Amino acid sequence: MRAAVMRGGKIVVDTVPDPEPQSGEILVRTLACGICGSDLHALQHGDLMVEASREAGAPTVMDLSRDVIMGHEFCSEILDYGPDTARRSRPGDRVIHPALLIRGAEFHGIGYSNDVPGGFAERMVLSESMMLPVPEGVPSEHAALTEPIAVGIHAVARGRVSARDSAVVIGCGPVGLAVIAGLALEKVEPIVAADFSPMRRALAERLGAHIAVDPQERSPFAAWSEAAQTRPPVVFECVGVPGVLQGLIREAPRMARIVVVGVSMEEERVKPMVAIVKELTVRFSFGYSLEEFAQTFRTIAEGKIEVDPLITGRVGLEGVSAAFEDLRHPDRHAKIMVEPAQSS
Amino acid sequence: MRAAVMRGGKIVVDTVPDPEPQSGEILVRTLACGICGSDLHALQHGDLMVEASREAGAPTVMDLSRDVIMGHEFCSEILDYGPDTARRSRPGDRVIHPALLIRGAEFHGIGYSNDVPGGFAERMVLSESMMLPVPEGVPSEHAALTEPIAVGIHAVARGRVSARDSAVVIGCGPVGLAVIAGLALEKVEPIVAADFSPMRRALAERLGAHIAVDPQERSPFAAWSEAAQTRPPVVFECVGVPGVLQGLIREAPRMARIVVVGVSMEEERVKPMVAIVKELTVRFSFGYSLEEFAQTFRTIAEGKIEVDPLITGRVGLEGVSAAFEDLRHPDRHAKIMVEPAQSS
Repeated sequence: MRAAVMRGGKIVVDTVPDPEPQSGEILVRTLACGICGSDLHALQHGDLMVEASREAGAPTVMDLSRDVIMGHEFCSEILDYGPDTARRSRPGDRVIHPALLIRGAEFHGIGYSNDVPGGFAERMVLSESMMLPVPEGVPSEHAALTEPIAVGIHAVARGRVSARDSAVVIGCGPVGLAVIAGLALEKVEPIVAADFSPMRRALAERLGAHIAVDPQERSPFAAWSEAAQTRPPVVFECVGVPGVLQGLIREAPRMARIVVVGVSMEEERVKPMVAIVKELTVRFSFGYSLEEFAQTFRTIAEGKIEVDPLITGRVGLEGVSAAFEDLRHPDRHAKIMVEPAQSS
Repeated sequence: MRAAVMRGGKIVVDTVPDPEPQSGEILVRTLACGICGSDLHALQHGDLMVEASREAGAPTVMDLSRDVIMGHEFCSEILDYGPDTARRSRPGDRVIHPALLIRGAEFHGIGYSNDVPGGFAERMVLSESMMLPVPEGVPSEHAALTEPIAVGIHAVARGRVSARDSAVVIGCGPVGLAVIAGLALEKVEPIVAADFSPMRRALAERLGAHIAVDPQERSPFAAWSEAAQTRPPVVFECVGVPGVLQGLIREAPRMARIVVVGVSMEEERVKPMVAIVKELTVRFSFGYSLEEFAQTFRTIAEGKIEVDPLITGRVGLEGVSAAFEDLRHPDRHAKIMVEPAQSS
């Protein structure tokens, strides 16, 4: 099959062996797969990602000297069944699946594995028991957005957010936008969003932010404070760049909760004393539960989150490398969809 | 009056003007005042403390080019009344008071202020409304331990700890020992304590730790894990030295809560990625509420915390400087009491 492969720190299109479904697995054709900020990190700082995964005790860690096919936000179509499958879905049915493949006793992060290809390829293998069918009428691209939106929904849950809370969301890339969507579902008010990019601020407002500020012009905490809140806000770090967390520790009001969702591979310098004196809480958030994944998909399928504006570009496998470059300019894009059937 | 003054990064004994009680304040004689780890930090890294206090938005920040009389863990005896006082207590009555003096609209951290002397001096001024009387039979030294024990009680509350939890306490100096006492009151089990010093490990066990390990010989998390816990532990960082927090992020099990109580003035390097993948929560803890202070004092007065073994030394004002040096050797001391009436 054709695939956009991470090889030697670059994305190259090549022909690679088709994956073979193992016990309980299904062979699928990739219809759409979003490019995630973590993919950009992995390409740029793969060694740091590997090191941090090891330190965090991840069960399997990719070997960067071998090929990795990234892509973990996908919608696909059933082609064929592996052994020991119940075959409740039929070839041609569309499915989504979380970003983890459990194969016997092994856990593979789909898209960050040498053994399991991600969605930047024509074919993938998925676990039959973890697939969710995509109903007629739900576009494949919307279904593929379940994964990144679930990350935001989970972060909101990690923040123990309720309708009595207010929130400040730092960074309105796909993660921040997903958090805003999750906060809007919980009827949090006000939701103050901050991003340098006018396009992203407009998207933030479309997804439910009440106030969207350019942090170069106005502090998001000043904007929050003017909205006359009495309780400290829940602050979401959705940037994942060194320095942002310490900036939030410095700027956040006393007793604030900071939820770190933006994945920074690099070392961060913080001043515990400032966090101590303000009695801040920092909650780190990662991934989502299967239940949250399924619930997020239902919410999208029911049209309760307007996901369409998030998709700002579409490319075929040949366009993946350029799309990675494009995504470094935050005013051009939110989510770019890779559609392996496309030719460009 | 005579006082041990922080001046130019040193502790010197000198004669300074007596403090004058303002509206609502009482003049007292210091009976006993503990030396706190924060005092050692302030002497060594005063500039960092000032900087961090400013960044944290502290209302008043000490000027290190002027005299500061430290000491905020004290028991004292009433000498005289300032204006606008109710005079419910009598001269000779003993009182304790939290480490904050509210004077009109000003907040003074007692012991970290140029305007309000701390307990390393013969006399202090306190707010009448915040004083708590010390009943007959409670030694002044025990009453003076209310302040540091309240810090531990508050940290346990910040950790949202219940009897269903287990705990790992890193560092068994006075802060760690206070946390252990607080955990024991909440019937947390097991409490795993870690310290390099055999003396401090013995104190930890005396105050309620079920397991006390030397981290050079055995990982406290391995010890915790052998005690077969199913829920992640609440971990207390009671060391306050750079590197400890990142070590805990690396060692702590998934979903653990880390409560940072040890005050580190220096910058800390952390790897957010490791904390993210494990979904850790870091709760920073500082001080205590007035209610916690009063409750802690009742608990000590009723003999529910065995505080006597914490006191490992006593000095007069002339001995304060040497005591600061002594406290840098963690196997010699837990708490040294300054008793200004003593001559040595």
